[in-house]
Amino acid sequence: MRENRIRKVWEAGGVASNVFLAIPDSFAAEVMASLDWDGVTIDMQHGVIDYQVAVTMLQAISRYEAAPMIRVPWNDPAIIMKALDAGAYGIICPMVNTREDAEKFIGACRYAPNGYRSTGPVRAVFYAGADYHQHAEETILTFAMIETREALDNLDEILTTPGLDAVYIGPSDLSISLGGAPGGDQTWPEAMAAIEAILAGAKRHNVRAAIHTTSAEYANLMIGKGFDLVTLSNDYRHMAAKAGEMLAALEMG
Amino acid sequence: MRENRIRKVWEAGGVASNVFLAIPDSFAAEVMASLDWDGVTIDMQHGVIDYQVAVTMLQAISRYEAAPMIRVPWNDPAIIMKALDAGAYGIICPMVNTREDAEKFIGACRYAPNGYRSTGPVRAVFYAGADYHQHAEETILTFAMIETREALDNLDEILTTPGLDAVYIGPSDLSISLGGAPGGDQTWPEAMAAIEAILAGAKRHNVRAAIHTTSAEYANLMIGKGFDLVTLSNDYRHMAAKAGEMLAALEMG
Amino acid sequence: MRENRIRKVWEAGGVASNVFLAIPDSFAAEVMASLDWDGVTIDMQHGVIDYQVAVTMLQAISRYEAAPMIRVPWNDPAIIMKALDAGAYGIICPMVNTREDAEKFIGACRYAPNGYRSTGPVRAVFYAGADYHQHAEETILTFAMIETREALDNLDEILTTPGLDAVYIGPSDLSISLGGAPGGDQTWPEAMAAIEAILAGAKRHNVRAAIHTTSAEYANLMIGKGFDLVTLSNDYRHMAAKAGEMLAALEMG
Amino acid sequence: MRENRIRKVWEAGGVASNVFLAIPDSFAAEVMASLDWDGVTIDMQHGVIDYQVAVTMLQAISRYEAAPMIRVPWNDPAIIMKALDAGAYGIICPMVNTREDAEKFIGACRYAPNGYRSTGPVRAVFYAGADYHQHAEETILTFAMIETREALDNLDEILTTPGLDAVYIGPSDLSISLGGAPGGDQTWPEAMAAIEAILAGAKRHNVRAAIHTTSAEYANLMIGKGFDLVTLSNDYRHMAAKAGEMLAALEMG
Amino acid sequence: MRENRIRKVWEAGGVASNVFLAIPDSFAAEVMASLDWDGVTIDMQHGVIDYQVAVTMLQAISRYEAAPMIRVPWNDPAIIMKALDAGAYGIICPMVNTREDAEKFIGACRYAPNGYRSTGPVRAVFYAGADYHQHAEETILTFAMIETREALDNLDEILTTPGLDAVYIGPSDLSISLGGAPGGDQTWPEAMAAIEAILAGAKRHNVRAAIHTTSAEYANLMIGKGFDLVTLSNDYRHMAAKAGEMLAALEMG
Amino acid sequence: MRENRIRKVWEAGGVASNVFLAIPDSFAAEVMASLDWDGVTIDMQHGVIDYQVAVTMLQAISRYEAAPMIRVPWNDPAIIMKALDAGAYGIICPMVNTREDAEKFIGACRYAPNGYRSTGPVRAVFYAGADYHQHAEETILTFAMIETREALDNLDEILTTPGLDAVYIGPSDLSISLGGAPGGDQTWPEAMAAIEAILAGAKRHNVRAAIHTTSAEYANLMIGKGFDLVTLSNDYRHMAAKAGEMLAALEMG
Repeated sequence: MRENRIRKVWEAGGVASNVFLAIPDSFAAEVMASLDWDGVTIDMQHGVIDYQVAVTMLQAISRYEAAPMIRVPWNDPAIIMKALDAGAYGIICPMVNTREDAEKFIGACRYAPNGYRSTGPVRAVFYAGADYHQHAEETILTFAMIETREALDNLDEILTTPGLDAVYIGPSDLSISLGGAPGGDQTWPEAMAAIEAILAGAKRHNVRAAIHTTSAEYANLMIGKGFDLVTLSNDYRHMAAKAGEMLAALEMG
Repeated sequence: MRENRIRKVWEAGGVASNVFLAIPDSFAAEVMASLDWDGVTIDMQHGVIDYQVAVTMLQAISRYEAAPMIRVPWNDPAIIMKALDAGAYGIICPMVNTREDAEKFIGACRYAPNGYRSTGPVRAVFYAGADYHQHAEETILTFAMIETREALDNLDEILTTPGLDAVYIGPSDLSISLGGAPGGDQTWPEAMAAIEAILAGAKRHNVRAAIHTTSAEYANLMIGKGFDLVTLSNDYRHMAAKAGEMLAALEMG
Repeated sequence: MRENRIRKVWEAGGVASNVFLAIPDSFAAEVMASLDWDGVTIDMQHGVIDYQVAVTMLQAISRYEAAPMIRVPWNDPAIIMKALDAGAYGIICPMVNTREDAEKFIGACRYAPNGYRSTGPVRAVFYAGADYHQHAEETILTFAMIETREALDNLDEILTTPGLDAVYIGPSDLSISLGGAPGGDQTWPEAMAAIEAILAGAKRHNVRAAIHTTSAEYANLMIGKGFDLVTLSNDYRHMAAKAGEMLAALEMG
Repeated sequence: MRENRIRKVWEAGGVASNVFLAIPDSFAAEVMASLDWDGVTIDMQHGVIDYQVAVTMLQAISRYEAAPMIRVPWNDPAIIMKALDAGAYGIICPMVNTREDAEKFIGACRYAPNGYRSTGPVRAVFYAGADYHQHAEETILTFAMIETREALDNLDEILTTPGLDAVYIGPSDLSISLGGAPGGDQTWPEAMAAIEAILAGAKRHNVRAAIHTTSAEYANLMIGKGFDLVTLSNDYRHMAAKAGEMLAALEMG
Repeated sequence: MRENRIRKVWEAGGVASNVFLAIPDSFAAEVMASLDWDGVTIDMQHGVIDYQVAVTMLQAISRYEAAPMIRVPWNDPAIIMKALDAGAYGIICPMVNTREDAEKFIGACRYAPNGYRSTGPVRAVFYAGADYHQHAEETILTFAMIETREALDNLDEILTTPGLDAVYIGPSDLSISLGGAPGGDQTWPEAMAAIEAILAGAKRHNVRAAIHTTSAEYANLMIGKGFDLVTLSNDYRHMAAKAGEMLAALEMG
Repeated sequence: MRENRIRKVWEAGGVASNVFLAIPDSFAAEVMASLDWDGVTIDMQHGVIDYQVAVTMLQAISRYEAAPMIRVPWNDPAIIMKALDAGAYGIICPMVNTREDAEKFIGACRYAPNGYRSTGPVRAVFYAGADYHQHAEETILTFAMIETREALDNLDEILTTPGLDAVYIGPSDLSISLGGAPGGDQTWPEAMAAIEAILAGAKRHNVRAAIHTTSAEYANLMIGKGFDLVTLSNDYRHMAAKAGEMLAALEMG
């Protein structure tokens, strides 16, 4: 089975880089995948992307080394299983707030007897190889998003769910859940304390820790704290940022 | 009829900014259009875009002030007319090398008696208003691309074509036609001489001059020379540039 | 934040008009939005429309004044949140039969602490403005569909759900639930009694009342009864009605 | 080979009804095809429709009796042949102004030795039957649009082109070509004289005559004059007309 | 109401043939439907197909006699109802493991008072006829997939669910649930025993029995055992099998 | 620049295998590309495929070794250039009947000074590498279809066109042009004589010879004659053939 680049980076002791795709187009996906990311994640939650176009994006990413992942819109077995069958090598699941949520999520990603995923990896075998079923469990990554006060309260129960590979922090939702403002790269004390608590919990239970960021500065801060994966914003924000910079530099006379 | 922002900028004595879209998606188009460009051009020639998705991109751009334009794949009345009917406020036509080419192009953009455009502005009236037919000719912009040695040889004949609003220089094709290398922002002497000859010709015949650039530096150089419109690269290059910068700034330990 | 035209009409003491879109196409949506509706609703339940094309329809509607709304296929947070992130200014949720249903629905539409909506309004900020998060709750409309006997039995509990802006009556489902025939514009006694009971309940709890209709006559009857919003059929029925009329008027000899 | 309903109507001495589709969607096409038209024409010229979606529209129409036709964007063999291969039973070709235009058009619709159409009727055999090649020529209809002064000048040469089944008048283009205003249902003297001259020419050369109309009144007028086919406006105009009528009938208090 | 060919075959005492579609394209669907299947099933679970393209596939199938069916991704009323409204004449629901699962599934397929399906058969009436609501229950087929040990344990409770027409065995999931390997055409003892137990249960409760197969040999074995419907693999497997055979037969020298 | 597998096979003295894709879907393309073809050709002429979906098909093919090629709908520089910019490694051009046709075709495939292709290989550089412009001419293959009597008459003039890599015989069109019946695998004397004349001409002028076939038997016959590339039918015919075989093998009792 084709290897998962993020697992390989982690096994080598490194930190993995990741980027989100919110633009529903396979060419934009190919351009992004051509850069040297460890993971490229199709964002079906807050991106403008549904399943049918996500498949073409997975195909475009597949020629590159980055692990293709999908953030699903919700903790729903229908879309989790379709994402995996289409060849996703990682699932980021939003709003995992309880042990029950975590088990529902992990179960949808694992075949019997470890879960209830239905077998039929229609495109996954083309991406991964004919031995997909045999090695899927040890290759595919499961990320539970920890982004509410409720999840913080249930942290250890979530982190000890069998089959959970990693937690993924969404700082914006976490902040509003804690009474703060929305937005990325949160640094106010309560948010920072929560981030560190999640990180510490992950280390305690030997689960990987990942976080969403919108700047290299914040990402580097998080790497420094010990995170295993940082996501560096997304496609359309990169596009708008550079376009805005260049437009501002025009001397229109 | 809704005004054309590029014409308005020009009438006020300014230089117009423009950007190309190569990603076939209306959300990416909306993000780009939300910046303060004077024109936003859907690139159906070297972009990855066909008509059906171009319509949704025009719709997304329409809420913003920028003039929506289309670079057509070729000097072909079928697509020129469909682009206009869909609401394009400017057509950039590649490879206009002769007076005959120019007349064929302009004729496709103008109704009788000034051309042979067929009437049926299906979406254009929703964008422009019910008086579209009456004011289309004075609102819509026609850009003939001058990008070959043959076009240079026929410059005055092209520039004096009735109804031609502007020339648009494609430096990469121009360079290879002159025996140079491909790529944007050409500065080698023969290319620069050709650019200046085209600009001088445009000024001589009271036609606007536009040029494709890939950096603010080169764009500013061209503004300084007297160009009326500069295109600042395109959507996916902006995206890749910023993503690459940020990825390179990660300290992966 | 851009205002919601339906709220504005209501604040001025008026009745709002609305139409449903069932055809999955952004041009058809633009044509309908160009008329003077107060709301235009993309029907993802009984229309032939899925998320990806709904986004382009929202973009097409956005240039017009009508409030863009979405009827979601089911009371499912995944699609409710994606609809809102895409810029919907109102959600019509089918089959809200209990207080629990209503709370699940409203919670998906509201950020913490009033709900559990995840933040990431990817296109909504382009439509609504940068202050979207701050004003979303007071701008976006929530409509719970009351269309079963069970919902009638739980009417007061539903109507007192915090954050519920309006009820929306689906006469066809309501009729079959009460033992009648399907179809719009129901007038048989039990259906009419149910409609009046819902309307009275809404007035009692200061919730707006909306109803689906298929004719101006029935809509006017409902306006006369005190409804705050009437939906006048949908795109393809309008199309077929006029086409049928004209075809019937041909004198084919 | 499946019969062509328009031919059948004509053979029975009747007048055929036709409608245009401008909305790029197969469901809208199915709704329109469910009415009792003799022909349903996908308008790839002034409609918002490209080839890929046109195929799904042809499939939707195929279950109904109406002859599926396509108005191509231009007199271009590439799209004419693709339209026929996809199962169109009639081609309406815009701007046939000369005998050379007519021969180019007809040749693209006929196999050797009567034309230069390439064989490979990929979907047409599923619609028409395995004997498609054998009967295509006598089943498929060719309509040359006569809509310019130049075409009027060349009328007899066009009408005598072997293989031409019908002429199709576009009153809006015809009017502007003659110096009038755009729009359907032209009645000013010079336009009417041209329409009658074309009709007389068609009768003289035993070619069928068709005309585009936007009202049953005008269509009936043309039927009275002897036209063999009338097109009654299109999908989105029908939709907007009925929606506008019903909205205007609301008594919003 | 248009009849359901599978029901007709069964009423005549026959065994029905069925095929799955996994390729998201209406032309491929039309090609498959043109063969003489009794049912053609769009596989939205393990196929690469989402709702929007499924509609065009249903339209393509509709011209042929085969009953158009959909395997939904999951036991979710939202997609079950949308599939039915789009004109599906049968729903195959995965992972029906308990009586509660079965009731949830059947309820989504039946109008009140037998279920909770919302009325609005937008395209179904075009396929089935105006009397759709009246006859839907006796025409549409419901297949519950029995494919886990848990389902085996609850077999009689599932089989006696009112409104259940048939069970559908997925041998691959069934095998892994029983501790075997994935893959079609399972013959190991425990799998075979389970298959026979399900078949016997179906016979006992007068419910039809269907099974997924990947070869005519296995299908014939199952017909011999008494199954009422066999599915013979799917579109892309047929394509790859024949292409592989022919490629292997090339003598490349 | 990434190598062209067909060229590599030829350089090693072998015969190349090729298959056509007519189904407009990237998953079907991936399945076919996963087999061991030397070339996989997207058929935009007689296939049901337009540009936008062809791009996603090219992306799907790109992960495999087969050379991705496109048969364009017609000898039109617009689509030839867009196909190449999207990453096609070979263009098969229909109906090349004269030296002028051949020069128009080849010119569209070559940059100055050897042709008039406009530079902007938007996706091609992602597939081929940054040195695309430098090596495109020696990597990309040009196939002129010889399929009419006129082409036979002009054979030597066509074959000596500079830059022509290969001829491609379309037996069905060739047959009808010679007065025979349509269909693949033609063996009647005049067709066979023409095929041999074209093959001999190709050998004489050191141009490669390719032919379309619909069976391994005919393909092997052609390999025996000395052809350099054989195309073995297409995707949907393979699918229908195997499905039909299996369906016929069912013993429905």
